[in-house]
Amino acid sequence: MVDKPLFTPGPLTTSRTVKAAMSRDLGSRDTEFIRVIRDLRNSLLQLAGVSQADGWEAVLMQGSGTFSIESVISSITPPDGKWLVIINGAYGERILKIIERHGIAAEAIRSAENELPDLVAIEAALGGEEFTHVAVVHCETTSGIMNPIAEIGALAKEHGCVYFVDSMSAFGGVQFDFAGSQLDCLVSSANKCVQGVPGFGFAICRRELLDATEDHARTISLDLTAQWRGLEGNGQFRFTPPTHTLLAFAQALRELDEEGGIAARAARYRANHDVCVAGMRAMGFTEFVPENLQGQIITSFLYPTDDFDFDEFYNRLNEKGFVIYPGKVTKANCFRIGHIGHLFPADTDALLTAIRAVAAEMNLSLSPKPA
Amino acid sequence: MVDKPLFTPGPLTTSRTVKAAMSRDLGSRDTEFIRVIRDLRNSLLQLAGVSQADGWEAVLMQGSGTFSIESVISSITPPDGKWLVIINGAYGERILKIIERHGIAAEAIRSAENELPDLVAIEAALGGEEFTHVAVVHCETTSGIMNPIAEIGALAKEHGCVYFVDSMSAFGGVQFDFAGSQLDCLVSSANKCVQGVPGFGFAICRRELLDATEDHARTISLDLTAQWRGLEGNGQFRFTPPTHTLLAFAQALRELDEEGGIAARAARYRANHDVCVAGMRAMGFTEFVPENLQGQIITSFLYPTDDFDFDEFYNRLNEKGFVIYPGKVTKANCFRIGHIGHLFPADTDALLTAIRAVAAEMNLSLSPKPA
Repeated sequence: MVDKPLFTPGPLTTSRTVKAAMSRDLGSRDTEFIRVIRDLRNSLLQLAGVSQADGWEAVLMQGSGTFSIESVISSITPPDGKWLVIINGAYGERILKIIERHGIAAEAIRSAENELPDLVAIEAALGGEEFTHVAVVHCETTSGIMNPIAEIGALAKEHGCVYFVDSMSAFGGVQFDFAGSQLDCLVSSANKCVQGVPGFGFAICRRELLDATEDHARTISLDLTAQWRGLEGNGQFRFTPPTHTLLAFAQALRELDEEGGIAARAARYRANHDVCVAGMRAMGFTEFVPENLQGQIITSFLYPTDDFDFDEFYNRLNEKGFVIYPGKVTKANCFRIGHIGHLFPADTDALLTAIRAVAAEMNLSLSPKPA
Repeated sequence: MVDKPLFTPGPLTTSRTVKAAMSRDLGSRDTEFIRVIRDLRNSLLQLAGVSQADGWEAVLMQGSGTFSIESVISSITPPDGKWLVIINGAYGERILKIIERHGIAAEAIRSAENELPDLVAIEAALGGEEFTHVAVVHCETTSGIMNPIAEIGALAKEHGCVYFVDSMSAFGGVQFDFAGSQLDCLVSSANKCVQGVPGFGFAICRRELLDATEDHARTISLDLTAQWRGLEGNGQFRFTPPTHTLLAFAQALRELDEEGGIAARAARYRANHDVCVAGMRAMGFTEFVPENLQGQIITSFLYPTDDFDFDEFYNRLNEKGFVIYPGKVTKANCFRIGHIGHLFPADTDALLTAIRAVAAEMNLSLSPKPA
């Protein structure tokens, strides 16, 4: 069966071979599987351009990406820690909510969902308060905006803070200078730009961060340090790993390498994005985020009219075999089209053809702009 | 590729068709997938012999089974709750450890790993202390012993406690009277006796337990009540679900039904167990748990001699294409052979043939007993 292409932020369309890698049952404590985990952890460090020799560790954690974020926050924060959370979307809000759920001190600096964080306000906050940790989302999937993680990292380091980046939807699909961004810990998940299937996430973090926080974990399941010690000790997960998902991820990492690494993948996503935005503009749709702030991961488009019926639009596209995504920004009515996964410009062309047909069926009043 | 059969407590050997069900990419918020989740939750209630109309709910949670246990404990316990944990193995100890990690009050009643819990001591404890919750493991996979969940349930109810059963390795493979056991909440996971692949677990619990504990969740990711409200509200997981694993589980539920339900599956596991124990005894191996206390899920065998080299035994079996499992009991040297998964008596026969060959290669001094 050929499934509908998923123009979403995940779960994504993956390659046939990634899915086929799941057709095996491996014992989670058997030597073959332990080798898979070891190689996969090494590959993640290589992707980030760092190594264990330089003091970095890759730790895998069961669950969705949010589980990995909560694992980091609830494991590495000392009792007297205080977070500064930089927020311009729902995923930044989620980080704050997790911190607060654990009774950890935090303050937020918010900017509009289609604007960059205010670096002056961040610097002022860091200078005046006793913050120990700074968090920001890399690509805010809420809107598709790319946040300036290197600039924020420089400020965090200047003020001696641990710097945490939620790179869920960006890692593997966006080129950036990992070490130069001065981050101490990054989280992403199996089914974003590496193009595996959902089931686990991972943290890439400085070893000293794990060593220094031995007893801070507030849960058993999400204890990042204990998970790391298990992976380093006997090479195994502490609790049953999603073996099939990990086999798919190992295959996905091979395919990322074969495609030409992050540079080639980022270029493909950029091409998907460019085709999409040009076609949507030509039809008369407008993006929510200004072009110069927009990443190539996902694009939010404003509803074309006040009475736009998104459910009908979605269902008609679905009937034609295309899955898009509802909006998530709070201050504007949007829908989203994703550019990541095993999708190519020709797939985006096919989506645009379907959107043109649906727009005609729905008699949408669009004001096409010249290309 | 044909993988080695896994005589382990999971991940298990699954059917080819269960694995093949993962060869699709479905959008997690798309209608087809929402239907899969709804049907799957209903099937779980049916398997337990309960229904939403009777006040029961099935809640799915990403991660390993331990994540689901922590989800229940950290979500349903009020700040002044106090647990009595009945322990005769490592999984009982893990429940206690989770409770303590969240700063929740608890006491344990321990018995030896090859003995049943002491019902008199449990009754005395419940009579004298202000316990609000009682927890026990159904089949202690540490040893393979089956605990008397109905008898403990009667005591818990007599003293007005919420009764929680960790039925991780038993649910779906053991016949028992769900309602008659007086339990309020049961947890199991996707890759045990239903024979799916690992990636999520589930709680089957009384709705009033969720309704009454709205604000008690100590984490965001593992918030059982919020997860339930999401599943009931829009039919979706709050955070990315392991879509492929869920598709495999839907297929596994169909195959459990086709096999003849829990009764037929329990009979197959019993047959696997009987073939295994008879063959091992004939070779001169002895079980750790007395026969009348032993379930059909997994069997612990004592090392045959003080100088038994388990690693060599394991590796030689592995080279012949069979995966068994190390022991986990604390007071005796054991190894374990599992009877669950897509395995049949003929598979166990093949394992026994391999064990006989390895015993000869290793010159094990065994004292065969007459059958």
